[in-house]
Amino acid sequence: MTNTQVTLIQIDNYGPWTTTPEPRREVDLQTLQSRLFADVAQLVGTIDGYAFFGRFDNMVAVTNGLDAADHIRIQESLGNRYPVTVSMSLEANSSPVQALGIASRRLQDTGSAQDSTRREVLQGDPATSRSDDDVQIAHFDVNDATGKYTDRLNEFDTFIHIEQGYAELMRYLREAHESLAFFVGGDNVIAVCSEMDASAYQDTITHVRDTVDVDLKVGVGRARTAQTAGMTAKHELERCRDSGSAVELGWQ
Amino acid sequence: MTNTQVTLIQIDNYGPWTTTPEPRREVDLQTLQSRLFADVAQLVGTIDGYAFFGRFDNMVAVTNGLDAADHIRIQESLGNRYPVTVSMSLEANSSPVQALGIASRRLQDTGSAQDSTRREVLQGDPATSRSDDDVQIAHFDVNDATGKYTDRLNEFDTFIHIEQGYAELMRYLREAHESLAFFVGGDNVIAVCSEMDASAYQDTITHVRDTVDVDLKVGVGRARTAQTAGMTAKHELERCRDSGSAVELGWQ
Amino acid sequence: MTNTQVTLIQIDNYGPWTTTPEPRREVDLQTLQSRLFADVAQLVGTIDGYAFFGRFDNMVAVTNGLDAADHIRIQESLGNRYPVTVSMSLEANSSPVQALGIASRRLQDTGSAQDSTRREVLQGDPATSRSDDDVQIAHFDVNDATGKYTDRLNEFDTFIHIEQGYAELMRYLREAHESLAFFVGGDNVIAVCSEMDASAYQDTITHVRDTVDVDLKVGVGRARTAQTAGMTAKHELERCRDSGSAVELGWQ
Amino acid sequence: MTNTQVTLIQIDNYGPWTTTPEPRREVDLQTLQSRLFADVAQLVGTIDGYAFFGRFDNMVAVTNGLDAADHIRIQESLGNRYPVTVSMSLEANSSPVQALGIASRRLQDTGSAQDSTRREVLQGDPATSRSDDDVQIAHFDVNDATGKYTDRLNEFDTFIHIEQGYAELMRYLREAHESLAFFVGGDNVIAVCSEMDASAYQDTITHVRDTVDVDLKVGVGRARTAQTAGMTAKHELERCRDSGSAVELGWQ
Repeated sequence: MTNTQVTLIQIDNYGPWTTTPEPRREVDLQTLQSRLFADVAQLVGTIDGYAFFGRFDNMVAVTNGLDAADHIRIQESLGNRYPVTVSMSLEANSSPVQALGIASRRLQDTGSAQDSTRREVLQGDPATSRSDDDVQIAHFDVNDATGKYTDRLNEFDTFIHIEQGYAELMRYLREAHESLAFFVGGDNVIAVCSEMDASAYQDTITHVRDTVDVDLKVGVGRARTAQTAGMTAKHELERCRDSGSAVELGWQ
Repeated sequence: MTNTQVTLIQIDNYGPWTTTPEPRREVDLQTLQSRLFADVAQLVGTIDGYAFFGRFDNMVAVTNGLDAADHIRIQESLGNRYPVTVSMSLEANSSPVQALGIASRRLQDTGSAQDSTRREVLQGDPATSRSDDDVQIAHFDVNDATGKYTDRLNEFDTFIHIEQGYAELMRYLREAHESLAFFVGGDNVIAVCSEMDASAYQDTITHVRDTVDVDLKVGVGRARTAQTAGMTAKHELERCRDSGSAVELGWQ
Repeated sequence: MTNTQVTLIQIDNYGPWTTTPEPRREVDLQTLQSRLFADVAQLVGTIDGYAFFGRFDNMVAVTNGLDAADHIRIQESLGNRYPVTVSMSLEANSSPVQALGIASRRLQDTGSAQDSTRREVLQGDPATSRSDDDVQIAHFDVNDATGKYTDRLNEFDTFIHIEQGYAELMRYLREAHESLAFFVGGDNVIAVCSEMDASAYQDTITHVRDTVDVDLKVGVGRARTAQTAGMTAKHELERCRDSGSAVELGWQ
Repeated sequence: MTNTQVTLIQIDNYGPWTTTPEPRREVDLQTLQSRLFADVAQLVGTIDGYAFFGRFDNMVAVTNGLDAADHIRIQESLGNRYPVTVSMSLEANSSPVQALGIASRRLQDTGSAQDSTRREVLQGDPATSRSDDDVQIAHFDVNDATGKYTDRLNEFDTFIHIEQGYAELMRYLREAHESLAFFVGGDNVIAVCSEMDASAYQDTITHVRDTVDVDLKVGVGRARTAQTAGMTAKHELERCRDSGSAVELGWQ
C-alpha cells in the first residue's frame, strides 16, 4: 500500500518579482529558475527524495524520509543563496494526487502565491509510519524516439510528438490512476504512482498509443524512498529494452 | 522581414551515457541537465541571444549576432566543464520553423544523436546580412493564472491547464504561423515568430481559447537581437496588463 | 577529547588534464574549480560536515558523521556531473594534523596525484566511536578589518595584510597546536583544532600580533559535527564583537 | 607599454549580511561566494577578461575591452540571481598596482564596504585607447610540485609550502615590479604585470627561491586582452616544461 509524501515547493511572490521595478532579463530568470531547481534536486536528492521542476516557480518533490527539519533547512539554504524565498507544504497519502491536493490547499490557505507578506511558510506534517512500499515510481520512455523522431524530424516536430505523448500520459494517469507524471528530459517521463499493477500500466500505454499514436514502455519500482524506487524503475526499464516488453515491475 | 538565426544544440550520445555502464542517479541527471542549460542560457545570453531548454538534451537558441567563433567557444566551454559534449547546427531564415528544420537536417546528416563517434559537430553558417527586424519575439502569459489556478486548484491540475494552453499554442503557432513557442516557466510562453501582425496574434489567442479554454495575452517586440526584441515584448506585455488589451506590438 | 575525522579530496590527474591536449581556458578552469568546490561544500554540508577549498585541486573536509557510503556517493555525484573525478582518503585522530597526515600517506600509497590510472580511490575508515566533543572549530577574524584596511588601503595591500595574518596563523596553529587553519573569505579564517583551551588561543593571537602586527579575535565551539561546532563558534565570535573580548569559548 | 584596465568588484555590505539577523551557515556562505565568483569569471571571461577570487568578497578583474555597459550588465546579472549586490570601480594604468589603487580609492570615496546604503555603485572609466600590448600576463607554477610536495607531504604542509611561495611572490611583485599576483589553484599563480622583461622575471624567481626556497618557472604573454595574453602565457609555460627553462616570453 503506497504512502507517498509529496511536497509542493512554491517560490514566494515570484511573478511580481520578475517584473519589479522593471521586467528582468529573461536570460537571468532562466538561469535563476534552472539553478534553483538544480539545488532543490540536490538538497532533496541527498536525502533520497526526488524533485521535479514542474512550472519552475512551483516544483513538486517526493520527500518520504525528509522530516520538518530537513524541509526548514532547504528553505534556509535557498534563502541564503537566492534573491527569492520558497514556501513549502507537504502531505502523505496513498494517492499522490490526494497528497498534492491537500498540500496545495494548505498552502493556499496561508495566502496567495503573489502575496508579498507570505514568505517561507512551511505547512503539513511528515508521514508518521513508513514501510518498504511507500513509494512507487514508474519510469516511462518513448520506443525508439531517436530513430523515429530525433534523427528524422525537425527538432520542434520531435518535441511536439514527445510533448503530446507526455500530455496525454500525465492527464490519463491523473484521471484514471491517481498518479502524477512529470517530463524529465529527452523522451523520459517519471510518474509517482498509486498502487498500480501491470494491467494498469498496460492500459495506460495502450490509451496513449490509441489516443496520440506514441509508443511507450515503462519500468516500475517500489521502495521506502523515491531514490531506491526510481533506481529500480530504471533497471526495469533496461529490462524492457533488452526483452522488448512494454511493462516490467521490480517486485515480480 | 524577419531573418531568425536558430541554433539546435544537442548533447552528444546523451541517452546511452545516462545508462552506461549502469543507470545514473536521476538527481544527478536533473542537476546536470538544468545546470548545463543555465550555462547555455548565460553563454548565449551574454551575446544577446535567447536559449530554450526544450527537451534539455536538445535545446534551441535564437542566436542572431553570434558567429561561428562564438558557437565554437560555447562548445569548448561546455566541454571543459561537463562530462558530456554538445553538437550544434545553425541556420537563418524568415521562417523560424524552416530555420530549425534545415538546422536539424544538417545535424542529422552528420550522424545519429546516439552515435558515439559524432562529437562536437558544428554545422551551418551565421546570417550574412542583419537588420533591425531580424528577430520577432512574442511573450505570452495566461490571464490571472494565479487567481484562477495557482491559488485555487491542486498544483497538478493548474499545471495541466497551463500545459494544455501551451501545447495548443505551440502546435497552432507552428502549423498556422511558422513560429516556435517554448514554455519558460510559471504561466509564460515565449515564441520566436515569423513576421506575424496583430490579427495573427489575435487569431492565435482566439484559437487557444476556443480549443482548450485558456485565456492568453501577448506582448511582441522586434529587434536585431533576441535580447532586445524579448525585452520589448516584456514591456508590451506589461502594457496589456495595465490596459487590459490582449495584444500589444512594440512597433506600433 | 577531540576526534576529528578529516577527508582529503583530490581531483584525479588534474594538472595534466588542464593542459591536455592544449592548455584549457583559465576562465573555464576557474569556473570548474569553484563550482566543484561549491558542490563538495553542499554534499558534505548537507550531512553536517565542513569543506575547505584549500588548493582547489586538493580540498580538505571535516566529515565526522559521514560514513563510507556517504563518501562513495559524493564521488559518484561529482563523477556524474564533471569532466574530472576525485579520490578521497579519510582518517580520524585527536590531532587534525595527524589525521590529515595519515590520510595523505594512504592516498599517496595508491599512486600519484598525476597517475592517469588512479581514479576514484577511497581509502580509510570512518571514526568508530563518536562523542559530543569530537570536533572543535575556531572561527577567527581580523579586528576592524573594514575600517583599518578595506576602506583605507589599495585592495591588494589589504589582501596582503589579511594574507600575512592568515599565513602566520596557519603556520603557528599547525606547528604549536596540531590544528588546521583555512582562509574562508573576507577576513575570516576557520580552524579545525585539537583540544585547545583559552590560553592556547590567546597565545596564538598574541603570536600573530607580535609577528605580523595583525589583530585577531576568535570564537570557538565543540560538538559532534563540524556544522554544530562551527555555528557555536560563529555565535561566540559575535560575543567577542559585543564584549570586545579576544577569545570566547562555547563550553564555558 | 602596458595599459591594464583593472576592476575592483566588492560585494555590498557583505560582512553584516553574513551575520544578520543570525550568523548564516558556513556551507551556504562558501557556496554563495564560490558560485558568485564562478559567475563573475564567466561574465568577465566571455568578453575576454580575467577574474581572480581574491578575498571572495573583494574580487579583482582585468577588464580591457569591457566598457561601462558591460560592467552594468554584470552588476544587473548578479543582482538578479543572488541575495547580495556588488559595487565596481575600474581604472586603466601602465601600473596594475596604480590602477587598483585609484580604483580602490574611488570606491572608498563613495562609502564604506559596510555601508548598507551604498549599493551597486559603478565608478571609473574604461581605457580610452587600446593597443596589442595593453595586458601582460605571467603564469607561474612550482617546479615538480607533485613529485616534491603533493605525493610526499601531508597535504597541509604541501599547502604551506605553496602558500609561502605565493605569499613571497605576491609581495615581491607588488613592491619591486608594480604587478599583482593571484593564486589560482594547485601550484599556479597568475600575475597581471607592468612592462617587465626577462631579467625582471628571473630576478623575481631568484628572490623567491632565496627567501623561501620554492622553485618557480614562468611563461609570459602580451596582448590586447587578458584572455589572449593569458593563453600565450600558458603556452610559454609549456615551453618551460619542455625545455627546462625558467622564463619564457611570448614576444621573443
